[in-house]
Amino acid sequence: MKIIKVNNHCLWLRYGQPIATESLAFDTQNTEELSALPSLPVKIEIMENKIKLSFGLDEAAKVFGLGQNVRGMNKRGGLYESFCTDDPIHTPDKKSLYGAHNFLLITGEKPFGLFIDYPGKIIYDIGYTLHDEMNITISDINADLFIFQNGTLKELTLSFRSLMGNSYAAPKWAFGYQQSRWSYGTKEEVDRIISGFEENEIPCDAVYLDIDYMDDFKDFTVDEQKFPKFEEYVRELKNKGIRLIPIIDAGVKIEEGYDVYEEGVENQYFCLNSQQEPFVAAVWPGKVHFPDFLNPEVRRWFGLKYKTLVDMGVEGFWNDMNEPSIFYTEDRLQRTIDMAKKSEGENLNIHSFFELTHAFKSLFNHPDDYQKFYHQIEGTLINHKSVHNLYGYNMTRSAAEGLEKIDPNRRFLLFSRASTVGLGRYAGIWTGDNYSWWEHILLHLQMMPAINQCGILYTGADTGGFSGNANGQLLVRWSQFSLFSPLFRNHSALNTRAQEPFAFDETITRIMRNVIKLRYALIPYLYSEYMKSVTQHGVYFMPLCFAFEDGFSSEVDDQMLVGESLMVAPVYRENAKGRYVYVPEDMLMWKAVTDKIEKTEIMKKGIHYVDLSLEEVPIFIKKNSLLILARPAMNVDNLDLGELTVLGYVTDEATYIYYDDDGITRNYERGDYSEVIIKVVYEHNQYTVTIKNNGNHTLRKVNLILVGPDDSREERELLIDQ
Amino acid sequence: MKIIKVNNHCLWLRYGQPIATESLAFDTQNTEELSALPSLPVKIEIMENKIKLSFGLDEAAKVFGLGQNVRGMNKRGGLYESFCTDDPIHTPDKKSLYGAHNFLLITGEKPFGLFIDYPGKIIYDIGYTLHDEMNITISDINADLFIFQNGTLKELTLSFRSLMGNSYAAPKWAFGYQQSRWSYGTKEEVDRIISGFEENEIPCDAVYLDIDYMDDFKDFTVDEQKFPKFEEYVRELKNKGIRLIPIIDAGVKIEEGYDVYEEGVENQYFCLNSQQEPFVAAVWPGKVHFPDFLNPEVRRWFGLKYKTLVDMGVEGFWNDMNEPSIFYTEDRLQRTIDMAKKSEGENLNIHSFFELTHAFKSLFNHPDDYQKFYHQIEGTLINHKSVHNLYGYNMTRSAAEGLEKIDPNRRFLLFSRASTVGLGRYAGIWTGDNYSWWEHILLHLQMMPAINQCGILYTGADTGGFSGNANGQLLVRWSQFSLFSPLFRNHSALNTRAQEPFAFDETITRIMRNVIKLRYALIPYLYSEYMKSVTQHGVYFMPLCFAFEDGFSSEVDDQMLVGESLMVAPVYRENAKGRYVYVPEDMLMWKAVTDKIEKTEIMKKGIHYVDLSLEEVPIFIKKNSLLILARPAMNVDNLDLGELTVLGYVTDEATYIYYDDDGITRNYERGDYSEVIIKVVYEHNQYTVTIKNNGNHTLRKVNLILVGPDDSREERELLIDQ
Repeated sequence: MKIIKVNNHCLWLRYGQPIATESLAFDTQNTEELSALPSLPVKIEIMENKIKLSFGLDEAAKVFGLGQNVRGMNKRGGLYESFCTDDPIHTPDKKSLYGAHNFLLITGEKPFGLFIDYPGKIIYDIGYTLHDEMNITISDINADLFIFQNGTLKELTLSFRSLMGNSYAAPKWAFGYQQSRWSYGTKEEVDRIISGFEENEIPCDAVYLDIDYMDDFKDFTVDEQKFPKFEEYVRELKNKGIRLIPIIDAGVKIEEGYDVYEEGVENQYFCLNSQQEPFVAAVWPGKVHFPDFLNPEVRRWFGLKYKTLVDMGVEGFWNDMNEPSIFYTEDRLQRTIDMAKKSEGENLNIHSFFELTHAFKSLFNHPDDYQKFYHQIEGTLINHKSVHNLYGYNMTRSAAEGLEKIDPNRRFLLFSRASTVGLGRYAGIWTGDNYSWWEHILLHLQMMPAINQCGILYTGADTGGFSGNANGQLLVRWSQFSLFSPLFRNHSALNTRAQEPFAFDETITRIMRNVIKLRYALIPYLYSEYMKSVTQHGVYFMPLCFAFEDGFSSEVDDQMLVGESLMVAPVYRENAKGRYVYVPEDMLMWKAVTDKIEKTEIMKKGIHYVDLSLEEVPIFIKKNSLLILARPAMNVDNLDLGELTVLGYVTDEATYIYYDDDGITRNYERGDYSEVIIKVVYEHNQYTVTIKNNGNHTLRKVNLILVGPDDSREERELLIDQ
Repeated sequence: MKIIKVNNHCLWLRYGQPIATESLAFDTQNTEELSALPSLPVKIEIMENKIKLSFGLDEAAKVFGLGQNVRGMNKRGGLYESFCTDDPIHTPDKKSLYGAHNFLLITGEKPFGLFIDYPGKIIYDIGYTLHDEMNITISDINADLFIFQNGTLKELTLSFRSLMGNSYAAPKWAFGYQQSRWSYGTKEEVDRIISGFEENEIPCDAVYLDIDYMDDFKDFTVDEQKFPKFEEYVRELKNKGIRLIPIIDAGVKIEEGYDVYEEGVENQYFCLNSQQEPFVAAVWPGKVHFPDFLNPEVRRWFGLKYKTLVDMGVEGFWNDMNEPSIFYTEDRLQRTIDMAKKSEGENLNIHSFFELTHAFKSLFNHPDDYQKFYHQIEGTLINHKSVHNLYGYNMTRSAAEGLEKIDPNRRFLLFSRASTVGLGRYAGIWTGDNYSWWEHILLHLQMMPAINQCGILYTGADTGGFSGNANGQLLVRWSQFSLFSPLFRNHSALNTRAQEPFAFDETITRIMRNVIKLRYALIPYLYSEYMKSVTQHGVYFMPLCFAFEDGFSSEVDDQMLVGESLMVAPVYRENAKGRYVYVPEDMLMWKAVTDKIEKTEIMKKGIHYVDLSLEEVPIFIKKNSLLILARPAMNVDNLDLGELTVLGYVTDEATYIYYDDDGITRNYERGDYSEVIIKVVYEHNQYTVTIKNNGNHTLRKVNLILVGPDDSREERELLIDQ
């Protein structure tokens, strides 16, 4: 074991010789190797073929983290597995979703954090077997552990974040509303959808292409029948302010003459089976090979394939099925068909019937199939199972690195379904195939801060729900939550009810128009907070207890903080005409209906039931905080960022640093961004406002709406010196 | 159409010539046939082959009802089907569960109720397609509609209840705690479970036998290997105060020499296929026939079959799989196997792969299979589909009528999985195969009042969850809810984690002991309220708005009333250390930990966050109401009902009628029951207590604990004259 003091917060323990995951990316120069193990908050045992961590949980202890996973913010009571899984039914009994996010925060007198840097399966028993014990089992004796101590929950998180390198910055237009469905499968259908937005005067920045745009589900192809003159079409839509975002899948169709397949075979770029032949699995196109994304040469090759579409004007991609998802393997399918043949004419009873149907059901992503293939890592064949969680991450890394080569200074929209810690440097994620269930609004709220803790900042749910049928009310309430997510995308599955903002009745269309416009109004704030998190190793979504130290804040798992100024508390119950809200300090509540700032009210610290009609979005502005707004536009490119509104709740003094940049290049990395420092002081019943403009050449005017401790409201305009 | 005024509340419209469901049982003598249709609250259209009901929903309108179904108390937003379905995954997108409960209550200026007496499929679109419209489609032009008007929601419900005849009265021991699992499959296993209760000093009144006690899943048989000397064993356990409750399934195994099968075939008692041969479906035992329970002769025959087990001392049964559940039919299985054979060696892609696996998945309860068989109703063959919802009801009716013949004066425990309105006269229901999900605690709370509205009073959930794995905390919180249900049964599935009260750690065992003992302490009140609902056509569980007319009460769908004195507000979130509670008038809150009455507090009308440690059960006593308690015992037979405690919150005057009877016979139907009228008057800071004992020969002493408006507490004892 190697014991390394990374810094005053972080201790790094290396057991055995772990595979390099490249999850973290920090400078090891200033670290210090220790000769003796300091006392640790967890007990660590090295067993024959695994490492076991254990920790006693007192009644008050909470365990936050695990990124994208089921159950509440506090993970206590659950049994989880870290194993990227394509399971579309996110019920609370599931153990894994698409991501493997091995970071935990444990509350207590001395809170601590834990990051397990290991790419195979880890089992977390967090007070499940015994209510007062946490047990973690790493299925290997080679792993890196990082233990974070000596700080608040927020400080421990930021310490972890600081080891990851800079996060991915999505382009600003990716903060616009985005519309998707499996599938808008033809040009005509895409046109029909875009007309829907235009006719209903609803803003939109992107429309997604799911698997059906491809020629027979072959990556980097476009079906010319369905999308004739694709390049022309991409540019035509871009002129309307709408980007087309195609999907890319992990599996490469086995088809002679298909360049990606041919090159992959020729260069031995695919994962191998135990006979060292390319491994065959079946996904959308039928039989495919999986590129070995763990091999840097393969990543370079595959990443440059995105050029085909970039050359046609595409500026964004979503990488799917990269857990990787496996519909079936040939031998398992054959065995299952054999079982069916043997059942013919039999009187199947409980045992034989369920065995047969279970065999067919479990073809899909069968766990044993993940042991059937191998990666070549520095010349050694490594079984997939032990590096499983690196697959989707490296597919998306391949894309990000490729796109950087293809168009080095452009910020592409890029997000993945599967992920692990480290992906946040290259892209975002969406949270996969959720359902049109009210419960899933809450589930997503609960996941968001934990995903952010793992450095994945650009994220959002399939708003309205992917599977199942939404109704208008669900879409509205879900949108009222998603409007705070960096990724605000409505996506739904084949054979489900249409759920575009205008797919329901007139009332719903009107409310959705307002909600989406409100999103555009909030973009200056949301983008500023996002980019500050990106560039300063911060988090964008936070649980209340990251800012409020009262005990109750750590109990609240249906509200969260969005950036430094806002608390949100969405309605997530069908037919609810309001909800309970815990206000941890006096706050200004704005019941937003449109972007017009009406219906504001100071809410006293404590518990409240807030009445909320379907059209009202409750936005809570923290004390001595400012919110920056623009006038809505039909897309991000058309936002007038020259005139902004600042809504503030100031009892003493509030300072907000409003970040902005061009939103499309990487020039911000070289210091080409602006910071407008807005300071409001409230003294002797008077406001003093100073605005310091560091480099913003757009901003001409700020309209201030300031609310003081006595609910007095003052409005004034300020012209900005360039 | 016939238009009949049933009474001042109820209008009966008969369309066509409906099949007699016998859901209702009221005296038609005093009804009056009208010549003209009065104005109706709903629009009714007779189409070619269906009846359509429609109603506009204004923003404030709520729609309660539909008995056992998914989603909230207010059904708005959902699409439902009335079609008894064995679907074990009760997610919010499902349309039907096991019961068909066609009663709705619509709020508004003039609230109204609607009961659709039709035994085939009914589709309810309650603000799903359009958020402001309700549309109901009855798939026939022959149906009875009952419209209830001119009253409050509670009055309309009671009016409906009064048309059903007297409800089923469970024996008093069935209010004890009951333990089940699929399966305690051997005598040794049952003994081990009972020892667990004894060793841990946890009360228990019944242990359940699931399908494995039978010989090869044949109804009315006992596997002699697993349960040698069954009769002796039943009596041995009864001496310990524990009843054994065997399961009975709807399907009769096809096996030569098996009496039930042979008699059924000989007498043509089974449902027929289109060739008029006994219809073959497969369930647990493999191929079975379904008794045609819609035929009274078949009911008489099957009902008397229970005698085999009654003669062995059995006093309770649960009737399962009576939707009826169909694992597969022979021809569909063959077609599916053929499809698998055709897939052999093919490169299955998205379309062909999902088609194949879907075919196997959808063998189970395939909707088309319900059209493949027929009932003989008064000599006519009727397709099952059009009378589907009567099947489970009539199976259980068969059992109830049989048991009455077998032992006329004994109250048997009897409940069913499938049901429709009318079943409540014969038995109760359990709510079927739920999951160990926190969401399902809330779902069950939301269902309970609606199930009661349909006259089914003896009901409860599989506490701790059937499928999936419970943890100790879930079992505790779920039990804290179920302890108010007439049926308080812990039941779990094969291959899930053991969830008996002592299956977790010591803390959980201790808390569960207290929770179950608290249940026994509450039995005098719970049984009294239940029996008054039984004999007076009442409801036992009620939404808050049945008692409180403030607008907010009708919004609350996570609290309910239990009888006339109590409001309950269980914790249903993992790791929650409390919950929000709406208190619609000043109430006395008792945070019960054991049966000892400590930690009481007056809660003012309004919203509260109530801290609740894992061991605390919040019980709210309404103003000027009384709660009756006994000292816990190890089973109901051993409860000392001679000395009771009365906990009252009295600011003016409270009167409680405490009902009791022998709990085991039907003598109560002939007036052999007691009513103790306890009256407490609070005036000039003094309590005056009068107790009028009408026939209770057991009660010797009452300990009063009275809390007044100023939270003053007075305790006194009263001896009772016999």
